[in-house]
Amino acid sequence: MARSARYHLYYWPGIQGRGEFVRLALEDAGADYVDVARERSGMATMMRFLEGRERGLLPFAPPFLKSGRLVIAQTANILAWVAPQLSLVPRDQAARLAAHQLQLTIADLVAEVHDTHHPVASSLYYEDQRREARRAAPLFVRERIPKFLGYFERVLARNRAGRERHLVGAAASYVDLSLFQIVEGLRYAFPRNMPRILRRFPRVLALHDAVAERPRLARYLASNRRIPFNEDGIFRHYKELDGPAG
Amino acid sequence: MARSARYHLYYWPGIQGRGEFVRLALEDAGADYVDVARERSGMATMMRFLEGRERGLLPFAPPFLKSGRLVIAQTANILAWVAPQLSLVPRDQAARLAAHQLQLTIADLVAEVHDTHHPVASSLYYEDQRREARRAAPLFVRERIPKFLGYFERVLARNRAGRERHLVGAAASYVDLSLFQIVEGLRYAFPRNMPRILRRFPRVLALHDAVAERPRLARYLASNRRIPFNEDGIFRHYKELDGPAG
Repeated sequence: MARSARYHLYYWPGIQGRGEFVRLALEDAGADYVDVARERSGMATMMRFLEGRERGLLPFAPPFLKSGRLVIAQTANILAWVAPQLSLVPRDQAARLAAHQLQLTIADLVAEVHDTHHPVASSLYYEDQRREARRAAPLFVRERIPKFLGYFERVLARNRAGRERHLVGAAASYVDLSLFQIVEGLRYAFPRNMPRILRRFPRVLALHDAVAERPRLARYLASNRRIPFNEDGIFRHYKELDGPAG
Repeated sequence: MARSARYHLYYWPGIQGRGEFVRLALEDAGADYVDVARERSGMATMMRFLEGRERGLLPFAPPFLKSGRLVIAQTANILAWVAPQLSLVPRDQAARLAAHQLQLTIADLVAEVHDTHHPVASSLYYEDQRREARRAAPLFVRERIPKFLGYFERVLARNRAGRERHLVGAAASYVDLSLFQIVEGLRYAFPRNMPRILRRFPRVLALHDAVAERPRLARYLASNRRIPFNEDGIFRHYKELDGPAG
């Protein structure tokens, strides 16, 4: 049984995946939370929600977060709801809408990263769509990574209140934590290409490095609560997909 | 120049695309809005925002909505913000979070629909990824459409307040309008497969039919403001992708 806590996070226990964006916010804030499916009997509890055997919201998929009687699904929705409680987003409405827009753009990027190794169907093994992946991944690396990181670089450059170090407002927000995770994941998946690409986006790289040094986050990243990247997750390293620099 | 109006919607002028989900909400509510890029010089105005030559939020992509000094991007973010003003979402927080979660699930489905004809890269023509599309589309039709529509069917069945006719709350919300659009689009793209699939999801079909009869929406759908589906949009009909019932 998951112990009593303010937040109950439900996500697949073996991967960082989309749940990691929520974990980073909770960990950075030092929030009281349980990672339910990683506790004993936790998977059974999670499945009860997904099978509609619990009251309230029926999630389409993990992650979802439970707090009191409220159940919230979809990563960006969870973050938009929880971030004010964690002091990880500015107070004013325009900044919150901007933060959510950025997080949804990160979600789009995450879906595209997944599709580099699963361009045909989620239901097929990677090995059964490797041919298509070998066409898709180099184009993603050459065109889409620079487009997305270039966008975040411009957002950083425009945000004077954040002294070019924060995407939204004057201080770190959950969106900064998520962009850190994007850089971590892309480096894991495409180690051959990413150093060259990141040199073009110094503000994104500086943000990544600054987030990694936040004390609570650094402790989390060094702990066994941080699941290592692996080839079941969204960011996967297949050498044949990290081809010669395009 | 776009005339004065309460809302200025910016989206590509030749397709329904993601902008259509916003249009449906504005039209159903009889809102005062301008579809900027379809007006004279409107494309130039839209490009100024995308190129960062306007103050405030830098959108990653259309659609975005301007209201007063506020600029909001990402379809689901726009809808979550505008729906309360249009009386197209319940008042309580739990229902609004549930509505947004459903809309984000619809956004995931929309991205997958797009990938049926662009499984390799958005930058390539369909003709240059037809081979991959012919593998991806039948799996999408057989596995993903039933998974998503089955999910919405269950959400409808569980929502007693909505008498199984509304996804959230007791009345029509923007999410109902969006699910209508999903059914319209899937029928356009996969006319051979969809009749059989939809028979399995009677609540989804009933919702679609009820939305189509809403007076303002019916007038909009019959007007020339409704751009016809075409092969530049998200929902495209390619006969070879709408194969024999799987």
